[in-house]
Amino acid sequence: MTDTPLFEHAVVVGIGLIGSSMAHAMRERGLARKITGCDADDAVRARAQEIGIVDAVSADIKKAAKGADLIIIATPVQAAADMIRDIAGASDPGTLIVDVGSVKGAFAGKARALQTHAHIVPCHPVAGTEQSGPDSGFASLFENRWCIVTPLERDAPGYRAAIDKAIALWKAVGAQVEVMDAGHHDIALAITSHLPHLLAFTLVGAADDLETVTQSEIIKYSAGGFRDFTRIAASDPTMWRDVFLTNKDAVLEVLGRFTEELAVLQRAIRWADADTLEDVFSRGRNIRRAIIQSGQETDAPNFGRDKENR
Amino acid sequence: MTDTPLFEHAVVVGIGLIGSSMAHAMRERGLARKITGCDADDAVRARAQEIGIVDAVSADIKKAAKGADLIIIATPVQAAADMIRDIAGASDPGTLIVDVGSVKGAFAGKARALQTHAHIVPCHPVAGTEQSGPDSGFASLFENRWCIVTPLERDAPGYRAAIDKAIALWKAVGAQVEVMDAGHHDIALAITSHLPHLLAFTLVGAADDLETVTQSEIIKYSAGGFRDFTRIAASDPTMWRDVFLTNKDAVLEVLGRFTEELAVLQRAIRWADADTLEDVFSRGRNIRRAIIQSGQETDAPNFGRDKENR
Repeated sequence: MTDTPLFEHAVVVGIGLIGSSMAHAMRERGLARKITGCDADDAVRARAQEIGIVDAVSADIKKAAKGADLIIIATPVQAAADMIRDIAGASDPGTLIVDVGSVKGAFAGKARALQTHAHIVPCHPVAGTEQSGPDSGFASLFENRWCIVTPLERDAPGYRAAIDKAIALWKAVGAQVEVMDAGHHDIALAITSHLPHLLAFTLVGAADDLETVTQSEIIKYSAGGFRDFTRIAASDPTMWRDVFLTNKDAVLEVLGRFTEELAVLQRAIRWADADTLEDVFSRGRNIRRAIIQSGQETDAPNFGRDKENR
Repeated sequence: MTDTPLFEHAVVVGIGLIGSSMAHAMRERGLARKITGCDADDAVRARAQEIGIVDAVSADIKKAAKGADLIIIATPVQAAADMIRDIAGASDPGTLIVDVGSVKGAFAGKARALQTHAHIVPCHPVAGTEQSGPDSGFASLFENRWCIVTPLERDAPGYRAAIDKAIALWKAVGAQVEVMDAGHHDIALAITSHLPHLLAFTLVGAADDLETVTQSEIIKYSAGGFRDFTRIAASDPTMWRDVFLTNKDAVLEVLGRFTEELAVLQRAIRWADADTLEDVFSRGRNIRRAIIQSGQETDAPNFGRDKENR
């Protein structure tokens, strides 16, 4: 606990995985004197109070926004874009408003158009698990993960300081910060996050529809590789629906590249082109080694999931 | 250690992940009085002796096969098919020969055609990690995993007893056993293992070829989902080349189903069909829950890989 917290009154809107993790992290590190949790769902607000990660709850974001110096919008992307006008309008001048959405272009476009004295700094902490809801959060979620900040082009007095304060917030919860424009964010995340999720959802759907292999067999033999895909395929459907609806162009672009590469491998299988197969298959080890060395992944075999068996 | 081991002299051909794990497991559980390790690679044989998982090593499989009552062929699929004639020819009458390959049709076809007094029982333990080589094995690899046994149609005297002995071997190293025909195995594994690997290899290849996103960015933001795919994409390239060359028809069949489903989702993204997206995305949680309940997967978020951070 620092003597002077970074923020006097933080409001977290949407108490799911990211919102509750931010509340945990801010509380553990003493980053806000008071935390209010906003959520449209009565049960979620009650649960947040039970867990004790917020000092107060509210169902009324406009009321809650007044008097806050930090507002974190941690809802699915579409909901964030829908509520940013109301939240910015109700906020005090100079309030820092960040979102945490996985797509930045759509939100930034909406935010840029607003006449507001609050400072909106779009952010995306690249961190998460496959779980959802107020019980899924934990304080260390952002540690050693990257948070991408995509500032609006905005000359408003104090906006530069607001960006710095947003960066300070993410560093204070343990993240490393990168600043880039929203368009580049959206293509980078399309390949590193959105396309992997799309493939995982698609594989699960395709497996579900096979008549020749039973679901019981898919479950039994999932240790052959399938189970890995089910982790991200278990992610929140609403959140991911919004990601694909709001990052359409970038996703279709990287999906096109993927299907080209897949066609090459399909042809190599059909024509028994061993060299092409081995060439592509040989690339995987290098990139995994680099990801492990960067601290973004465990070096334990099987993600360490079988540790208890060893 | 049981008083009477299941086998007097076991020969493990190919001391990689599966071969060394079998040696560890048989040794730990006292399943063979003597274990000989065969490998074409001098360094691998030397390393196997250093680790102490074999009693003897040999570079000559024909010589090693004589006097063995169990031979485990744990090489890539193509190599196993190439050497089965020599091994069976050199074996004593009644010797049990199992392989561990991820594709069963090709090996079974080759084995069925052989005139031999040895008993060849094709097997596939659905277990592994992304690592390779004699140091990657461990005794508990097969615990609670499934091993699929695909007996040859063969009326030879003693063959039924050999199947039972193969089943006893897998149960003794901790696996559950399912018996089915080779063709059904190959389609079941195409969807649960081969296609997931193909998608992972393809994604890594496509990411590698993007000009707009740097490799450094892919590494940094890999926690968004990409890193999950790199685990199986780091698997042994030769082994996987052989899988796709020998299970062509089943892989192309399930790949066709996958690309159909992917086209549906691509269209849903292009036309902002929120309902279709949410419908498909909602299937993931159920299958993951079933896999966790079956004991084939950990219930820890993020595979428990971040456990040290919690």
